[in-house]
Amino acid sequence: MSEDFELPEDDFEEGAEENPSLLNDAAFSLVNQALAAVDELRVEAVDVQGAGCILDFGVETTGSLAAGLALAEICMAGLGEIQISNGEVAGCTWPHLNVSTDNPTEACLLSQYAGWKVNVGKFFGMGSGPMRAAYADEAIFSQLDYREDATAVIGVLETGRLPDLKVVKLIAEKCKVEPERVALLAAPTSSIAGNMQVVARSVETALHKLHELGFDTTQVVSAFGTAPISPVAADDLAAIGRTNDAILYGGRVTLWVEAEDEELRMIGPNVPSSSSSAYGKPFVDIFKESGHDFYKIDPLLFSPAEIVFHNLETGSVFRFGEVNSEVLKRSFGL
Amino acid sequence: MSEDFELPEDDFEEGAEENPSLLNDAAFSLVNQALAAVDELRVEAVDVQGAGCILDFGVETTGSLAAGLALAEICMAGLGEIQISNGEVAGCTWPHLNVSTDNPTEACLLSQYAGWKVNVGKFFGMGSGPMRAAYADEAIFSQLDYREDATAVIGVLETGRLPDLKVVKLIAEKCKVEPERVALLAAPTSSIAGNMQVVARSVETALHKLHELGFDTTQVVSAFGTAPISPVAADDLAAIGRTNDAILYGGRVTLWVEAEDEELRMIGPNVPSSSSSAYGKPFVDIFKESGHDFYKIDPLLFSPAEIVFHNLETGSVFRFGEVNSEVLKRSFGL
Amino acid sequence: MSEDFELPEDDFEEGAEENPSLLNDAAFSLVNQALAAVDELRVEAVDVQGAGCILDFGVETTGSLAAGLALAEICMAGLGEIQISNGEVAGCTWPHLNVSTDNPTEACLLSQYAGWKVNVGKFFGMGSGPMRAAYADEAIFSQLDYREDATAVIGVLETGRLPDLKVVKLIAEKCKVEPERVALLAAPTSSIAGNMQVVARSVETALHKLHELGFDTTQVVSAFGTAPISPVAADDLAAIGRTNDAILYGGRVTLWVEAEDEELRMIGPNVPSSSSSAYGKPFVDIFKESGHDFYKIDPLLFSPAEIVFHNLETGSVFRFGEVNSEVLKRSFGL
Repeated sequence: MSEDFELPEDDFEEGAEENPSLLNDAAFSLVNQALAAVDELRVEAVDVQGAGCILDFGVETTGSLAAGLALAEICMAGLGEIQISNGEVAGCTWPHLNVSTDNPTEACLLSQYAGWKVNVGKFFGMGSGPMRAAYADEAIFSQLDYREDATAVIGVLETGRLPDLKVVKLIAEKCKVEPERVALLAAPTSSIAGNMQVVARSVETALHKLHELGFDTTQVVSAFGTAPISPVAADDLAAIGRTNDAILYGGRVTLWVEAEDEELRMIGPNVPSSSSSAYGKPFVDIFKESGHDFYKIDPLLFSPAEIVFHNLETGSVFRFGEVNSEVLKRSFGL
Repeated sequence: MSEDFELPEDDFEEGAEENPSLLNDAAFSLVNQALAAVDELRVEAVDVQGAGCILDFGVETTGSLAAGLALAEICMAGLGEIQISNGEVAGCTWPHLNVSTDNPTEACLLSQYAGWKVNVGKFFGMGSGPMRAAYADEAIFSQLDYREDATAVIGVLETGRLPDLKVVKLIAEKCKVEPERVALLAAPTSSIAGNMQVVARSVETALHKLHELGFDTTQVVSAFGTAPISPVAADDLAAIGRTNDAILYGGRVTLWVEAEDEELRMIGPNVPSSSSSAYGKPFVDIFKESGHDFYKIDPLLFSPAEIVFHNLETGSVFRFGEVNSEVLKRSFGL
Repeated sequence: MSEDFELPEDDFEEGAEENPSLLNDAAFSLVNQALAAVDELRVEAVDVQGAGCILDFGVETTGSLAAGLALAEICMAGLGEIQISNGEVAGCTWPHLNVSTDNPTEACLLSQYAGWKVNVGKFFGMGSGPMRAAYADEAIFSQLDYREDATAVIGVLETGRLPDLKVVKLIAEKCKVEPERVALLAAPTSSIAGNMQVVARSVETALHKLHELGFDTTQVVSAFGTAPISPVAADDLAAIGRTNDAILYGGRVTLWVEAEDEELRMIGPNVPSSSSSAYGKPFVDIFKESGHDFYKIDPLLFSPAEIVFHNLETGSVFRFGEVNSEVLKRSFGL
């Protein structure tokens, strides 16, 4: 299967297309690395006749810390460095996930953001990864004027169910590639790897919130973020709660920006999660109160606990928000 | 020597043996990497006629931080990631050693645990590394039903004396390989690398304690641990004290497990070192009071200061024990 | 250009010269790696007819975190590991730069120390990197009895202006190589990469201070340091202030030494920056009070905030100095 899925070298070298497939191509080599290491990663290549490559990163497999790192890196199209580091939550030892990137808009908004709801029959998954840039249907792609003419696409699906050929065909159609040129990596939020790939979104949520607030994120030159690896929950609802809490109440992000101080001073207080009226309790409670409807939750909630801007233009530093250990303790069952 | 010691490719590819030599083979390529980098690592290949490969990681060499990392990785048969990170002990800056593994039972119990007392004539060394799995004489190997039919074996010896041919022959005989197929890496506890390879045992001590308490460690899916790098002591007795203190009073471990909450709730309080009656003073004092006899020390002492379980089955989190800065300060001479 | 600049293999392999070019050769392969990755690093190869290789790491380019890591590694001739880690300054999330090396004297004093003031016409830059060892004009080279007969040299210039052919020719002449065999990497202190390469000097300042105090630094076997990445300033004067503050008030260094306790006890209190009469305010204020003249500033100021010695000979630990969060907050505009 690895062989079948190899990217023809000439596609990549040529680069003659109008909209070159930079993100999908970059993720491609990482997918092939993962394919070559399925046993070490404790993941599995699933045989779906007619599809390019379906990798089970946690639906029916155990996964691993290494699989979580690989999944998060692929989700960022290889444009971020991700690492487990030591840290604490409320005085208790707690592994953290660090993310750094010199291409925050590309890595986070054009690839990592879970903006594609993939819904086919009984299948539902939050779609992220560079395949989004080939579909380019979300408003953010016209806003950022980006799309890829891909010959092969890579997607990450946050889902409790393995994608079947119907899912692959839908994605292939939307991305204008053959089903044999679609690679999908699936993991539920309540799996080791699926949990980690969400916790790796500290920088992404900061970027997305800034974008929503009307900030031109191409002004964000580089970024570094850290968040506690939430304990893997027993079911996906609880998992969605905890992974969100890891970011909302434990995520800490530093952005190097080229912007005007005045803009940062105005927009900054609205960036951390504490700027939302929904802030202050475990996400699972907020989610329940909204009738399990994401769209009824204040969209301004989705951002890290703390954000620090280093303005390269002026040398100014702006800090907003802080970690909320009390909510983390409740959420993590500490 | 590197050439002589190269593992025949076909042995590895074949994998036809009943008990394939996974751990020893994995460590093998790491030993060859070390051999190719002896100068950078500040270690030395010692010429012992008839032996495969004797590497001095600190007996008569200075060693290095890089040698410590290499030694610890080889000791875990390449199944762990080891890294130096910044941290603190009692407010003082203090480099820590982080360990993560997705194969805790294999890396720690079947390889890293120093369970083989190698005693030949005047030579004494605590033997660890994958050679133990080829000998497979310790009770833990029958308990875990594991042994390797190796064609070459790798061992780490915590010792103040370089192993000679007699040592090599004994190990070869026990492991059923030719002496030319034995690679040994030797370092005293009171050397930079020897000190680090013990501090890298935060996860291992947690696993071993759990095993001793009757917990099925194959339920431990992944692990992350950190401990302060104890200051290298002037002699081996003091070094044994400090490296143990780094773990007992400064080791912090997170385990991702698939287990029953009830079992974790019952067994958990007995896991951290503080559960032992011997807990509370520098290890060197405990050792002296036992008449320098390890076997008179409460075996329940040997475990990290803090242990946190993330139960993948239920989402529950259990925390036991905590760092003891006061004893660390005394032990480290702060 | 990369091709033109490739180091002839035989030069390196031969090693027949009296003063082999170890540092410059080691940095060479890193420069070639950077050349192959200019786009990812957001740096640029500048065309200077007759010069070997001029890389703009921040003068007219944006640079990146990855460029900062590469620049710092090249500056240490590849003899140090450099990494971004999470940390805090006064409770605010703050990325730190960790440095570890097993060759502190070579990496820091013979290469990384910015001891060569390169002044040609309007051009001024603080020169560091292994080219210094080929010139070997500074007193420290005769004191440490080191010089390189290089066939190609690598230098890092902390400067706001790109070096032209005159600069290259001066360096070539002093280093006794052809101008075509000179590679220079230029970055202002007030750029992302230029800022990071100074913050990477936590260990270097400790070593240099020790050398100035008459301590034989070859007794320092290994080192680990960390310092907060200062916010990139808007101009070079402010940047010099902040990068110095990152070290003086935020730098924390651990040294593994083979020395006499008495010597460490005597010399130690003079090592941290707090031993200087100038200590206690942001560096930019000290600099202004000295009339912008480095030479009027107490040279004993230039060292990390905290230094910890682990004496390998005796097992003793000595700690001097501590982080000064108040000055860091003022300097970083927190």
